[in-house]
Amino acid sequence: MDTIKAIQTRRSIRHYTDQPVPEPLIELILRAAMAAPSACNQQAWEFVVIDDWETIQEIPRLNSAAAPLKTAPLAIVVCGNLGRELPLARGFWVQDCSAAIQNLLLAAHASGLGAVWMGVYPLDHLVTHLETILGLPSGVIPLAVIAIGYPAEQKGLQDRFDRARVHRNWWKEQVGGRKRRRCDAIQGMSR
Amino acid sequence: MDTIKAIQTRRSIRHYTDQPVPEPLIELILRAAMAAPSACNQQAWEFVVIDDWETIQEIPRLNSAAAPLKTAPLAIVVCGNLGRELPLARGFWVQDCSAAIQNLLLAAHASGLGAVWMGVYPLDHLVTHLETILGLPSGVIPLAVIAIGYPAEQKGLQDRFDRARVHRNWWKEQVGGRKRRRCDAIQGMSR
Repeated sequence: MDTIKAIQTRRSIRHYTDQPVPEPLIELILRAAMAAPSACNQQAWEFVVIDDWETIQEIPRLNSAAAPLKTAPLAIVVCGNLGRELPLARGFWVQDCSAAIQNLLLAAHASGLGAVWMGVYPLDHLVTHLETILGLPSGVIPLAVIAIGYPAEQKGLQDRFDRARVHRNWWKEQVGGRKRRRCDAIQGMSR
Repeated sequence: MDTIKAIQTRRSIRHYTDQPVPEPLIELILRAAMAAPSACNQQAWEFVVIDDWETIQEIPRLNSAAAPLKTAPLAIVVCGNLGRELPLARGFWVQDCSAAIQNLLLAAHASGLGAVWMGVYPLDHLVTHLETILGLPSGVIPLAVIAIGYPAEQKGLQDRFDRARVHRNWWKEQVGGRKRRRCDAIQGMSR
């Protein structure tokens, strides 16, 4: 799929068929994730791939906004590993992992998969919940859960471009920004 | 350009020709940025497009790792706007803006441009420096500066895939992780 088309047509997919995601596709999207840039190329990321149904079902117990996991055959928890941060690039792991996630989402979409990014960090109760489920050691912080599967819903293009967010050479408040819908998710998890 | 190819071949480009970036391409990469997912679709981002040469040259004064700006015809400062964060999604602006930046970088690469992501936040002295240069109001936080232009350097593929970062259903430390180069950038800015 063309890059610009993939970027513009990718939507958060929250319903999946029961078809499992083949191993080569799992590796392809992980390769895409790890191709992301990172501060000083530190790559302070880790990926917990979950295809065990019971483990996946543990995750949304705490959070109704994680409902996509109820039909997802696959989840990937993207974590920052503070032990891998370089002294000169401390504090950049959230940005590094987020770039990796965006690559992963685009690669999934371009491969015919659907996915949704569900935020965990910086919500303490969700971080603790994931640390417990996955047995994460100290210093490995779950940033987000990505639910992945073959789409059982179709979504059209959503044009989010808003000229009011573009400033030229200097800050200037633009008028006419769009109104956005109120967040209908609980605890900030859903995108 | 194919999506997977764009993801895998995108590299940080730090040297540019003096050819300016045409306006339609600037809009295309901003459209790509704003197509990113965000927590609760809050889109708490702002983009300061800088093509004024003197303004661009102000930025690297504080930071030798921002040297790419010395030849860049264009810079885009991606900012989080805390005033746009929804109550249920507070604290997610860094992730949202990072996803937008990754889209922007991929769209630039797919369009024949070269770019590099230079981190600003959470380094206080760089945040203050950018706020001053751009006249940012309180609550608008510069996350990163993206230097953009037509490439004056060629870079081959870099395979960053590391199986040791992949865990299955439960945390397990993998052995055999690659050694990474020491960061040669100053103050964590360069990628």
